[in-house]
Amino acid sequence: MKRFNELSPCERRKVYSELSASYEEYKAKGLSLDLSRGKPNGTQLDISNGLLTVDLTDSYKTREGFDCRNYGIVDGLPEMKEFFADVMGLRKEDIMVGGNSSLQLMFDSLMRAMVFGVYGSERPWSQEKGLKWICVAPGYDRHFRITEKLGFEMLTVKMGKDGPDMDEVERLARDPKVKGIWCIPKYSNPTGYTYSDEVVERLVTMQCGAPDFRIMWDNAYAIHDFSEDADELVDIFTVARKHGTEDRVFYYSSTSKVTYPGGGVALMAASENNRRQIAPYLGAQTIGYDKINQLRHLRFFNSPENLRAHMLTLGSVIKKKFDIAFASLNSLRGLGIAEWTEPRGGYFISIDAMPGTAKRVFELASSLGVVLTAVGATFPYGIDPDDSNLRLAPTYPTDEELSLACEVLVLSIKMAALEKLGI
Amino acid sequence: MKRFNELSPCERRKVYSELSASYEEYKAKGLSLDLSRGKPNGTQLDISNGLLTVDLTDSYKTREGFDCRNYGIVDGLPEMKEFFADVMGLRKEDIMVGGNSSLQLMFDSLMRAMVFGVYGSERPWSQEKGLKWICVAPGYDRHFRITEKLGFEMLTVKMGKDGPDMDEVERLARDPKVKGIWCIPKYSNPTGYTYSDEVVERLVTMQCGAPDFRIMWDNAYAIHDFSEDADELVDIFTVARKHGTEDRVFYYSSTSKVTYPGGGVALMAASENNRRQIAPYLGAQTIGYDKINQLRHLRFFNSPENLRAHMLTLGSVIKKKFDIAFASLNSLRGLGIAEWTEPRGGYFISIDAMPGTAKRVFELASSLGVVLTAVGATFPYGIDPDDSNLRLAPTYPTDEELSLACEVLVLSIKMAALEKLGI
Repeated sequence: MKRFNELSPCERRKVYSELSASYEEYKAKGLSLDLSRGKPNGTQLDISNGLLTVDLTDSYKTREGFDCRNYGIVDGLPEMKEFFADVMGLRKEDIMVGGNSSLQLMFDSLMRAMVFGVYGSERPWSQEKGLKWICVAPGYDRHFRITEKLGFEMLTVKMGKDGPDMDEVERLARDPKVKGIWCIPKYSNPTGYTYSDEVVERLVTMQCGAPDFRIMWDNAYAIHDFSEDADELVDIFTVARKHGTEDRVFYYSSTSKVTYPGGGVALMAASENNRRQIAPYLGAQTIGYDKINQLRHLRFFNSPENLRAHMLTLGSVIKKKFDIAFASLNSLRGLGIAEWTEPRGGYFISIDAMPGTAKRVFELASSLGVVLTAVGATFPYGIDPDDSNLRLAPTYPTDEELSLACEVLVLSIKMAALEKLGI
Repeated sequence: MKRFNELSPCERRKVYSELSASYEEYKAKGLSLDLSRGKPNGTQLDISNGLLTVDLTDSYKTREGFDCRNYGIVDGLPEMKEFFADVMGLRKEDIMVGGNSSLQLMFDSLMRAMVFGVYGSERPWSQEKGLKWICVAPGYDRHFRITEKLGFEMLTVKMGKDGPDMDEVERLARDPKVKGIWCIPKYSNPTGYTYSDEVVERLVTMQCGAPDFRIMWDNAYAIHDFSEDADELVDIFTVARKHGTEDRVFYYSSTSKVTYPGGGVALMAASENNRRQIAPYLGAQTIGYDKINQLRHLRFFNSPENLRAHMLTLGSVIKKKFDIAFASLNSLRGLGIAEWTEPRGGYFISIDAMPGTAKRVFELASSLGVVLTAVGATFPYGIDPDDSNLRLAPTYPTDEELSLACEVLVLSIKMAALEKLGI
């Protein structure tokens, strides 16, 4: 088929009329499908069901004999740190193991920054006026929600194939009011892009106006490769230490999409200066996180090798979902009305529909019973300036549901484009 | 034996010399004992070992069919709320189930107050100067640590048999700079005293200078009775609602000392206005707490009745420890050098040694290998103005260790008193 913008008005009307017939057929099906949520489905969760039966009766102690049923060890079991260090490529001494949620560790980090400041702050951030934050977009709505609630003015920088537009990031970071940046460096939500070595290097070497600028490095998909043919992300701490800027980095990850969302284990990694600054506040916040769940994860996986095998099993299940979505999206190829990403890992596909049509796509799909992620959710303040980006989360539906939902999505993208071009 | 202050100098020297002989005998034993930590021991923890083997393979869904392995339900499973409502005597709609730590929920509440304010605040607390906080003492060091880190000036009010000195609390609360009070209303740490109905009534009816004054109601020992012959605490919400002051109350509890410290489930309860004010910030902080651990607790207990039976089993184990300590302390009776509490529940015994001797008692006991809770830890800033209070945590040692440690403690209290009186 020709590119839509090369169709004559008459041809456009003809195509639109055919699509409208399909629309009515889907309408008659009375669908109720959901592509909005970056959630695993039951089959994926079942892969971790060994966690539901781990019997710790004879193994509730650490290697050193510490009884994990009791109080103590605020920043994580030594063997949990070693395990994470191995699988994430971190140094174990940099790791603080937290509760079940890396988002919570991020929120807590910025709350501490507001009330106490971070290492290198001249005063608590709440005592400064007009603070700003760099948001790479499209990005993760829950990151943006945190900085919005904390009152930061959010500055949008475009996400590209190699990471954020670094010229723009460097320009903005020179402003002393700019306190940090949100980054999902590998299989970024929602584009699936991975930061290049050069982008990482520029992030840790750029000149920051604020002496207490922080890179919020949410490496949520650090190990979420679909196969061994995977993206490679350089270790930001290794690069930063070369330049003496490791204090600039707050690193987060979790097993939320490795085992169970909500029932997993989260971590933060940071330099010695940062850890030392955080320790007294962490010690005031809690006597300790859930060590039993750390043990449960350690016993379930037993070794980093088993975790890697587990991730490949998981990856192949998720890849199947992505392939179903790609197959549908393929029918948009050559029409000049949409571009999309084909990541080798992570949880999302990002689609750029024809500018000015995303909201209409959402509306059309909704009217057929297919719920998409709210348009704009991937941008600060929930506003996509181009009204173009759609986030596709293919993991939750069954194969059949996903296939149907993607057909509806493709149909909606086509109809919205034709409406925009004029029919 | 006579009261120590009625002994002649010669008699005092004679008694001291006998005690010194005992001291040397204990010294020769090379003890290494710990009475400092309010931690359960292995036997107590074993009572909850069913938690280590709960198999959720066929029961990972809620009553309504929600898959707890997945994202969602930020403020707790409905059945967990109902369960807590039953055992704590709360309304289920007031409950927000949190992670593993009520201390963390308290810290987070005050961090939110600093950054966003609470319901009724004119501005975030961090934007006000010279804030103060009422600390009932002797009390819980970790409460005091939070308000100290947050920069509150801490005002000490004496804890009595019926609760804090309410005349003093009422006087202080009139100051608009005073934002709240820490309370452990039942089997208070460390005295074991329970607030009377009148004290609770006065707390919720007193005039507060600050429109956003908060009672931090840490009901940690709500269900920690040794037997059915137990202290009764009136439900603060019931009383407050009568007077329309329920917004003044932030309520906390957990299963840390019901099942496992660190591996349990915590809760916060609050009025509708408070919950509504908190919800958007809680929603920014996390997608959800660990629901699997909530389920695990529900399956382990199965019913509130089983929990009550569990607490009586636990109570009888802890009571035995307290009785061992009481037996030793009895030898201080009539000497006029120490008073102590004999609670019917909770975790601690509070001893008031002769004023000006607590530090010396600590030193003497330490020199014999018995670690006591740091003197002053039960007061704001770690300073006991009378140098008198000692917190005894009898739960952790074995019976034999506890018995030995208490003998050493009694010996140290006597020697320190005689040194003070002059020998």
